[in-house]
Amino acid sequence: MQFSYTLEEILKIAGEGQAEGQTEERITGIASLSLAAAGDLSFLGNKKYRKEVASCAASIVVLPEDHDGSPKENQVFLRVTHPSKALAQVCERIERDCWIKPVAGIHPSAVVDPSAKIDANASIGPLCVIEAGATIGAGTVLESQIFIGHQTQLGDDCWLKPQVSVGSHCLIGDRVRLHSGVVVGSDGYGYSTVGGKHLKEPQIGRVVIEDDVEIGANSCVDRARFSETRIGEGTKIDNLVQIAHNVIIGPHCLLVAQSGIAGSTTLGDHVILSAQVGILGHIKVGSGCRIGGQAGVNGDLEPGSFVTDTPAYPIMQARKVEVLKRRLPDLFKRVAKLEELIDVN
Amino acid sequence: MQFSYTLEEILKIAGEGQAEGQTEERITGIASLSLAAAGDLSFLGNKKYRKEVASCAASIVVLPEDHDGSPKENQVFLRVTHPSKALAQVCERIERDCWIKPVAGIHPSAVVDPSAKIDANASIGPLCVIEAGATIGAGTVLESQIFIGHQTQLGDDCWLKPQVSVGSHCLIGDRVRLHSGVVVGSDGYGYSTVGGKHLKEPQIGRVVIEDDVEIGANSCVDRARFSETRIGEGTKIDNLVQIAHNVIIGPHCLLVAQSGIAGSTTLGDHVILSAQVGILGHIKVGSGCRIGGQAGVNGDLEPGSFVTDTPAYPIMQARKVEVLKRRLPDLFKRVAKLEELIDVN
Amino acid sequence: MQFSYTLEEILKIAGEGQAEGQTEERITGIASLSLAAAGDLSFLGNKKYRKEVASCAASIVVLPEDHDGSPKENQVFLRVTHPSKALAQVCERIERDCWIKPVAGIHPSAVVDPSAKIDANASIGPLCVIEAGATIGAGTVLESQIFIGHQTQLGDDCWLKPQVSVGSHCLIGDRVRLHSGVVVGSDGYGYSTVGGKHLKEPQIGRVVIEDDVEIGANSCVDRARFSETRIGEGTKIDNLVQIAHNVIIGPHCLLVAQSGIAGSTTLGDHVILSAQVGILGHIKVGSGCRIGGQAGVNGDLEPGSFVTDTPAYPIMQARKVEVLKRRLPDLFKRVAKLEELIDVN
Repeated sequence: MQFSYTLEEILKIAGEGQAEGQTEERITGIASLSLAAAGDLSFLGNKKYRKEVASCAASIVVLPEDHDGSPKENQVFLRVTHPSKALAQVCERIERDCWIKPVAGIHPSAVVDPSAKIDANASIGPLCVIEAGATIGAGTVLESQIFIGHQTQLGDDCWLKPQVSVGSHCLIGDRVRLHSGVVVGSDGYGYSTVGGKHLKEPQIGRVVIEDDVEIGANSCVDRARFSETRIGEGTKIDNLVQIAHNVIIGPHCLLVAQSGIAGSTTLGDHVILSAQVGILGHIKVGSGCRIGGQAGVNGDLEPGSFVTDTPAYPIMQARKVEVLKRRLPDLFKRVAKLEELIDVN
Repeated sequence: MQFSYTLEEILKIAGEGQAEGQTEERITGIASLSLAAAGDLSFLGNKKYRKEVASCAASIVVLPEDHDGSPKENQVFLRVTHPSKALAQVCERIERDCWIKPVAGIHPSAVVDPSAKIDANASIGPLCVIEAGATIGAGTVLESQIFIGHQTQLGDDCWLKPQVSVGSHCLIGDRVRLHSGVVVGSDGYGYSTVGGKHLKEPQIGRVVIEDDVEIGANSCVDRARFSETRIGEGTKIDNLVQIAHNVIIGPHCLLVAQSGIAGSTTLGDHVILSAQVGILGHIKVGSGCRIGGQAGVNGDLEPGSFVTDTPAYPIMQARKVEVLKRRLPDLFKRVAKLEELIDVN
Repeated sequence: MQFSYTLEEILKIAGEGQAEGQTEERITGIASLSLAAAGDLSFLGNKKYRKEVASCAASIVVLPEDHDGSPKENQVFLRVTHPSKALAQVCERIERDCWIKPVAGIHPSAVVDPSAKIDANASIGPLCVIEAGATIGAGTVLESQIFIGHQTQLGDDCWLKPQVSVGSHCLIGDRVRLHSGVVVGSDGYGYSTVGGKHLKEPQIGRVVIEDDVEIGANSCVDRARFSETRIGEGTKIDNLVQIAHNVIIGPHCLLVAQSGIAGSTTLGDHVILSAQVGILGHIKVGSGCRIGGQAGVNGDLEPGSFVTDTPAYPIMQARKVEVLKRRLPDLFKRVAKLEELIDVN
């Protein structure tokens, strides 16, 4: 991606902050502190890398307000309230300037049922399939080879990457982003075992995805057994995540890669699942809970809990236990010595 | 999905049971005990929710035979031998009444090799690709954008959802359901490391999927190195599950989401893997084994074993150890006190 | 797959080794020691199965040089330096003889932008989509229903299976194999949380995949936030693996199924991740490290480390602790007895 901005343009895009120093370079790249060269914009987003600022060769370095030190020659320190947000704004501008926006309209190779309602400002890419009664809102982009089942509704300004599949009867809000390989509306996993055989319980509910949700590549959201599976407004889901039938996820949650939530469990708002977490079915995870990586949650959690391990328990306790667990060889020796000293036998 | 059934119709669909009470409502929805309103059918499938029956507002409540209590006015309690099975039958009827069944025939946008044998009663949806020598049985539905490799055979009454891929030379039985994003017949993961480089071991075997298997969205079944990978009759696999090459799974197993089985391992019949389980390669898991969520099995298991943890061991023992592990901080204090009392040093 | 080779042909394909015994059978199958019959070639690749050689009924058995014993009548023992490599060569020949190679050229149903540069010796299968400015090298095969984003470059002799998606601006080397459902170049998972809402950090970097990489079905490689995500030469990735944005993986690593690496982490060369491993973001895993199955690595690892468990620590220590952990019930009893004996209270 090729772009080129002056210092003045960058200051305007960032929208806030105090610039110290001066540079004549045009910004043509973005790079981390250790890799940046003249012509790059760099930034301190994670305090862990604080010491790399002094040796950074970027032309502009975006820093938090309280960062000390001064720029080199031909370098600018731009101190802002939220470095990540300022950087996001620069990146968003680059994205807008560099990426080819598809034009509105339906590609001739797409297979669209005549009863589907496609807004005149939507863009339906090549080899998409849209079934009967589906609705696609204004500004929504379906890139390529996407499937939209019958009666499913997509709102405005959604962005579906190639090879997404959304089954029938689902409801997708506005500004939803679905990445390649996402499957929405697959059957929930439900069987009744009678005489050693597993009889399928038909899954006749739907999936509701609220506004501003983003779902990463190859993640799955199953339709409800009946009623609905729901992903709350502004929740962001990473790649390869599994959401089972009848799960209800509140607004503004973060679900990191390869996590899974079993059937009928509910999450409040602002819950954070680290990567590879598993949550049992039919439980309640309160608002603001945080779950450590690879943890397995097997019971209800009070709002604001921070747990880890399998089965999960409070993280402060788990950290202590983890340290002591590794000292078990020593403890067994100490107990043996005690037994010897007081001649247990 | 819109439907409407009288009490008499519901009794007929359920096929068995004793009705107590009377209602004039037509059933137009299905809902859980706590959410149901007049016009809904509800049910008690999990005893955990037993206490919610008394306050349930559904017009019909399906209950196990031994459930006490009486219906409210304008409400029916329907006591049956298997509530889940009765409910499944109602749902199946709704599914049949509401979902648009594709007509038989080949969509003009599909790319079908002239040497493929497509039964006249099969339905090949838009933008599917069927290669040379493939066979598709009667009543089988390929919804949309599906790939079937050369020489692969699908039996009768299979249902493949959009964007499934089945590689060449595979054998799929009757009434198999594959959900969106399923990959059958990808190469197994096998390399010979010579001089620090990983040389590919060609994977020239096939995958055999027996009758009545169902596989969830984005799951993968690798083809064998040679010979076959096999999924036994009636086995049900959830989403995002990994089945490596040369794995042999017996009949009527349940593999919950995000589990994985490494190469050449065999499972007996009626094995249950909870979610996110890992099974090492080249081992034998006996019939009727149950594996707890996130467990890692690294050795053979006798039939009927119930294990958990990583590495996995018997669940009764693991539960005790888990309780004591959390009491380690206390145990370390107790040992220190003993050492002080008997003056170890 | 049907094939038939004489003993002489097999000796030629294997390329090395000492044959003992004689057989008139033509080889028409490959099977494991316990399943092989006359007409099959079998082999001892894993010493675990050593005792099965004596009763093996295969016509040719490939063995390591130091294997004792003699063949039966009408059977050949072929002793070679690398049994797995010899077998791989036989399998490769079978693969070449049996699989239908697609012809060069662009299938008429593919949607290819006029500005894309497709080598005359590349093969673009049915219903593929190739966007503006993309480049496809000589001998590269895109099987079916594949997406290649704009400006993305694929080298020579790559093999992409059906339904792969490679986003825009990515760089793929030579001889890269991507299996069905692989997503390369999906957005990284990055948000800045401001006022309880998660603002998207645009992901404007790319993915670089070096020569001879293979990636298994339904795995995901996210594009960088800026700069690049990189998979080193000869690295082999199994199914359902997650590679987050800005991860740098060195050459000749092995990443087994369902593992995940969080953002900005770097792996040296020849690192081995067993299945279902998780690696935290922003850390360094040195060359030659091995990570046990289901382990969770949460800090830098020195080259050559071998760790397991969550959080991960050295495997020799972890194995001892694991044994002692299961003896906790006994230890608690022993401590209680000591307390009784010396009358703690």
